[in-house]
Amino acid sequence: MIYTGRRYRMEGNSFGRCLRMTAWGESHQKAVGVVLDGLPSGLKLKLEEIQEEVDLRRPGQSEISTPRKEEDRVEILSGLFQGKTTGSPLSMLVYNRDVDSKPYEKIKNIMRPGHADYTYRLKYGFHDYRGGGRSSGRETVSRVMAGAVAKKLLKHPGIKVIAHTTQIADVSLEKTPSIKEIERNSRSNPVRCSDPETADLMMKRIQEIAGAGDSSGGIVDVVALGVPPGLGDPVYNKLDAVLAKALISIPAVKGVEFGAGFKSPDMRGSQMNDPYRITNGKVVFESNNSGGILGGISTGMPLIARIAVKPTSSISVKQKTVDVGRMEEVDLGIEGRHDPNITPRVVPVAEAMTAFVLADYCIAGGLIPPRFPK
Amino acid sequence: MIYTGRRYRMEGNSFGRCLRMTAWGESHQKAVGVVLDGLPSGLKLKLEEIQEEVDLRRPGQSEISTPRKEEDRVEILSGLFQGKTTGSPLSMLVYNRDVDSKPYEKIKNIMRPGHADYTYRLKYGFHDYRGGGRSSGRETVSRVMAGAVAKKLLKHPGIKVIAHTTQIADVSLEKTPSIKEIERNSRSNPVRCSDPETADLMMKRIQEIAGAGDSSGGIVDVVALGVPPGLGDPVYNKLDAVLAKALISIPAVKGVEFGAGFKSPDMRGSQMNDPYRITNGKVVFESNNSGGILGGISTGMPLIARIAVKPTSSISVKQKTVDVGRMEEVDLGIEGRHDPNITPRVVPVAEAMTAFVLADYCIAGGLIPPRFPK
Amino acid sequence: MIYTGRRYRMEGNSFGRCLRMTAWGESHQKAVGVVLDGLPSGLKLKLEEIQEEVDLRRPGQSEISTPRKEEDRVEILSGLFQGKTTGSPLSMLVYNRDVDSKPYEKIKNIMRPGHADYTYRLKYGFHDYRGGGRSSGRETVSRVMAGAVAKKLLKHPGIKVIAHTTQIADVSLEKTPSIKEIERNSRSNPVRCSDPETADLMMKRIQEIAGAGDSSGGIVDVVALGVPPGLGDPVYNKLDAVLAKALISIPAVKGVEFGAGFKSPDMRGSQMNDPYRITNGKVVFESNNSGGILGGISTGMPLIARIAVKPTSSISVKQKTVDVGRMEEVDLGIEGRHDPNITPRVVPVAEAMTAFVLADYCIAGGLIPPRFPK
Amino acid sequence: MIYTGRRYRMEGNSFGRCLRMTAWGESHQKAVGVVLDGLPSGLKLKLEEIQEEVDLRRPGQSEISTPRKEEDRVEILSGLFQGKTTGSPLSMLVYNRDVDSKPYEKIKNIMRPGHADYTYRLKYGFHDYRGGGRSSGRETVSRVMAGAVAKKLLKHPGIKVIAHTTQIADVSLEKTPSIKEIERNSRSNPVRCSDPETADLMMKRIQEIAGAGDSSGGIVDVVALGVPPGLGDPVYNKLDAVLAKALISIPAVKGVEFGAGFKSPDMRGSQMNDPYRITNGKVVFESNNSGGILGGISTGMPLIARIAVKPTSSISVKQKTVDVGRMEEVDLGIEGRHDPNITPRVVPVAEAMTAFVLADYCIAGGLIPPRFPK
Repeated sequence: MIYTGRRYRMEGNSFGRCLRMTAWGESHQKAVGVVLDGLPSGLKLKLEEIQEEVDLRRPGQSEISTPRKEEDRVEILSGLFQGKTTGSPLSMLVYNRDVDSKPYEKIKNIMRPGHADYTYRLKYGFHDYRGGGRSSGRETVSRVMAGAVAKKLLKHPGIKVIAHTTQIADVSLEKTPSIKEIERNSRSNPVRCSDPETADLMMKRIQEIAGAGDSSGGIVDVVALGVPPGLGDPVYNKLDAVLAKALISIPAVKGVEFGAGFKSPDMRGSQMNDPYRITNGKVVFESNNSGGILGGISTGMPLIARIAVKPTSSISVKQKTVDVGRMEEVDLGIEGRHDPNITPRVVPVAEAMTAFVLADYCIAGGLIPPRFPK
Repeated sequence: MIYTGRRYRMEGNSFGRCLRMTAWGESHQKAVGVVLDGLPSGLKLKLEEIQEEVDLRRPGQSEISTPRKEEDRVEILSGLFQGKTTGSPLSMLVYNRDVDSKPYEKIKNIMRPGHADYTYRLKYGFHDYRGGGRSSGRETVSRVMAGAVAKKLLKHPGIKVIAHTTQIADVSLEKTPSIKEIERNSRSNPVRCSDPETADLMMKRIQEIAGAGDSSGGIVDVVALGVPPGLGDPVYNKLDAVLAKALISIPAVKGVEFGAGFKSPDMRGSQMNDPYRITNGKVVFESNNSGGILGGISTGMPLIARIAVKPTSSISVKQKTVDVGRMEEVDLGIEGRHDPNITPRVVPVAEAMTAFVLADYCIAGGLIPPRFPK
Repeated sequence: MIYTGRRYRMEGNSFGRCLRMTAWGESHQKAVGVVLDGLPSGLKLKLEEIQEEVDLRRPGQSEISTPRKEEDRVEILSGLFQGKTTGSPLSMLVYNRDVDSKPYEKIKNIMRPGHADYTYRLKYGFHDYRGGGRSSGRETVSRVMAGAVAKKLLKHPGIKVIAHTTQIADVSLEKTPSIKEIERNSRSNPVRCSDPETADLMMKRIQEIAGAGDSSGGIVDVVALGVPPGLGDPVYNKLDAVLAKALISIPAVKGVEFGAGFKSPDMRGSQMNDPYRITNGKVVFESNNSGGILGGISTGMPLIARIAVKPTSSISVKQKTVDVGRMEEVDLGIEGRHDPNITPRVVPVAEAMTAFVLADYCIAGGLIPPRFPK
Repeated sequence: MIYTGRRYRMEGNSFGRCLRMTAWGESHQKAVGVVLDGLPSGLKLKLEEIQEEVDLRRPGQSEISTPRKEEDRVEILSGLFQGKTTGSPLSMLVYNRDVDSKPYEKIKNIMRPGHADYTYRLKYGFHDYRGGGRSSGRETVSRVMAGAVAKKLLKHPGIKVIAHTTQIADVSLEKTPSIKEIERNSRSNPVRCSDPETADLMMKRIQEIAGAGDSSGGIVDVVALGVPPGLGDPVYNKLDAVLAKALISIPAVKGVEFGAGFKSPDMRGSQMNDPYRITNGKVVFESNNSGGILGGISTGMPLIARIAVKPTSSISVKQKTVDVGRMEEVDLGIEGRHDPNITPRVVPVAEAMTAFVLADYCIAGGLIPPRFPK
């Protein structure tokens, strides 16, 4: 009865405190889903509102996205009665349809570099080689479904979350776009960039690199507007700390910064500090280097976060790796369906996670009511 | 009885899951302290081991640190019996001695730019103007005390956490130091840099900028050696996600990245992916762009994180701000005791938080036993 | 934007710490389900093992159970690969089939005494009158599915949980049954009593009372065998405290006691205290008034808990109540499908919750491995 | 590095969700204390208000209480500024003064029956024989300090919690007292009974039994008045489930019931169900067998809980036990300072835990504001 192994577990598939999502599902099993608990009752909610968000991350929508054909049709199994939330858990799922596990059979013992095959294998004693199982980006469907509900909730306090692509490989968005430009343009091109011309350049660069059998990464900016001051719980549940956890947990994200972020080390205090002024009898900030957060608490200015997305791990150029079945070194070129750049599809996921965090804080203290009036 | 306010609260002063720290204390109240719960029993622990770590963040140690004189003498009030932990909560505190609240009286309604005065005031209805209360960097004493115990625990699985300063203002450490250099040198100079010559340059830059009444920031690298593969709980409690939360929660930290971090967007997949090889019959990685984490799970390679520290908010050059008592715009130059660059004092705090996160994961699954043998 | 309501929410549909179940579903919506997180990987698990447990609580099995015909066919949607758990969340559900909401339409504004109609209505702003929604006993399907997996896990440390009916109305089991009698008999009669003759008397009493249009209650004893010493986390997560929460959360349960329980107030210390003896070189207890728990930690003796089940709330005799739509007093006799005594169907639920609590503690510290060997 | 032990740990010294207490301290170490997190800011709080509650559980107050002389002087170390809570953690402690560890030295290997010596030893590898360490009833000082703050908070929504002794050994309070009688009388006699004559009989019975070197137990009733409808989070955080956990976690408590509790199994549905009526245009209940809770949610009626307290474990009559140092059977009569009946001292602890649970729920949703107006 003595256990001598040492692969260490705790639950990790729930997120949030008052509003809590519990996600489940793998790439090549029956479905992916999420249970939302702590929802207010009486919230009007339509299936289409969730479907719309899920559609934004759906694969197969452009030439720079995996051709896996998934309808990703959302189903709601509980928690809704006469078109309104009941306050009981909202259970949602999407069945996996276009599951093709065959291509994975022949590489089932080959560790794909950059993927989680090896670490899952060490931790769990095997890995679900069929698309990576739980480590597949497919789990983000759950995040987007939860985020869609969070966005709906945020309409009550008037908070809006918008993410957009600001860099692809070496192509950066030069000028800072206005909110209007972001809103107007960032959903109208496949790379999700606010500037149509830059978007074209980004598309070309993705395809150029993809043409060489390789992949590229990018940067996503997340902005939240209308965030009231006072959100965030020092000292360990600061707003930025919780957002950092939420955003870094997204597959492929390798860094996060707020406001001036990694530029701040080379700034002076006199440059970094946002001066206070009085306008129309109200205290306002003259700048927003803090990214809308001071001492872990929202300031009332727009919330600004930025995340680094690594290049897609699956590439067709040959890579050095190992076959852990035969324990020998092999070369691997991954053919098949994968995105040459995952950044555009991270955009809706980053929005979802940010919206969820904000909704959780708002529920915690009454900015979103525990029960909506009839 | 109807409440119409909306300043939203949840508890935020505990961190960790199996091993849990609950911190308390303000800059100008009686003490700061921490309660550690979930500790294994039978761990040999000496007061001096904790004192030693606390001494590393203590103010007043060099010309680039606040002259506030705090002995910071650690006391253990519970949880230790005959020199060993009992498995019951370990309660530790440090009394505040050199508390001088007078200089704060005259600026008690003036919002110090870059500080949390304003957000605390909005959230809690007032702010403890005496040194910032809970938003003061003084709360990090609790983190360091908890981290000292975590480091002791990590000796069991053989994990070592080392942080060091790699950038101050525009002065960067050029070459990547060896672990030995970091260990040998980074505690022997006030800026906590692994290269003595760069350390000198950094010191000079800090003083130059301070001489102009201004402040500067920096970058801290954190390395964890001996981390076994398998730590981290997908999908929301990934190792990097939890570390990001821990590190961003440190005062003044504005960004965090892992491995190639913000460089990865401009890398190709073929450059980013760490190839696998077989050496002496074991699977190894040829590089470590992942920073020791794949899919949120440790790979067995060194864990590499990097954090951006903003310039100290308190500066003596005049800044534009407001007096919220009289609701008028004022100019503020902050005289008094403050660090011209907080980066070196973030180093032990970053070590503490990283050690704590790792110890928590190790306890969760038995890498650190729930009870040490006699 | 100011919220003046005051119906207070937090999430409440998850249970457990390392092993965590998140349940969802209502009586008259599409399905009921549960997500299990924190499961070890490599556990062999068959759908039939879960189905078997669910079948034990299924309605329509005898003349003393509601004639609602539910197949209650369990489906597993994630977390299982090649017949073994993957370590990722296990998502299970049962679709509702025999849903007949019509009888509820006419009483939709009438508060059924003893049910949660009124409190749900106050809390959530409405109540799902179709069978009580989330407050229906149907939610216990989720508990039983989770408990079935917990039972499978407990085979590893060799723990067995058995519940049985010891009282129905005024008919009590006179003699203390042996474990063998409980195991042999308590699944072979509809009331789940270990003594066949008493079972007959119980059946008769239930029917007698039901014949008068009324309902009755009962007492369920829960025994756990093979519980190793050391489970339980003082001072707030004591084994008995957590079990009490788990058992009281079951619908219709109004009390819980451990060991001598409510008899202990009238015992002397010299009677209550279980003496220690040495047998075959081992410390043993001479009695078990503690119910296997001292100071909130398991002693190694059988765990003994007892719960009081109130009479079924739905009865056909006329009751005084109100119609909250027309705000007038009415008489209500509830015809339709309901159990005249719910005690026998609480038995598998009590087993499930107890097994789940024990499995959670065992996982926390390695008694159940985080990963099963191949 | 392989761990083969199996004494399983998780943290257990925190309680509450939005409002959270983290307790620490042992009987014979320096102090016992508690950290309260999640407190609203702006709450007026005096040290004396906490001291007053702590005094009610203080030992040495009458002939039926241990003569250990503890001043139990409360100190507040953080979280209070200008007489009001700051919203930061409130850290409180009581130093242990009259610590006499000598009598324990000679019985340090002897397992005291009924105490947690043996289970602590098994779990943690040793036990703090000096008064039981953390398993000592002394930990309840932390509960009472936290409860005092909770009671203060509950004044805002107008909730009052009162506990009183209703049975000592075989002496029961015959008639149900009015709230006024409970309030007037239950603090005016050492047994904390609402009826002075019964109190006298109870005192005599305690002393009679104590005179024979033995101990007795009792029953404590807890009533909460002014509880608004709507508190409680189905299905696992039902109000009664969380209260059951809170109350069973109190040392010496072996059972808990709500409303009709263990009487309900022998009631009919028609007797148990509380009829609804309309009075002055409001829905009211005609009886309160539910104890103020339906479906895990408060009904608005008084909350009624009842707990069974076992006889004090320390008795001077000889008991059979073992010396685990020499592994031999011995007889043990415990002389020294102990209460012959602990029930009266459980009264303030039961009040404290109940108040804490209610305050937590009230904070969760805004019945107690996150910030009190000036």
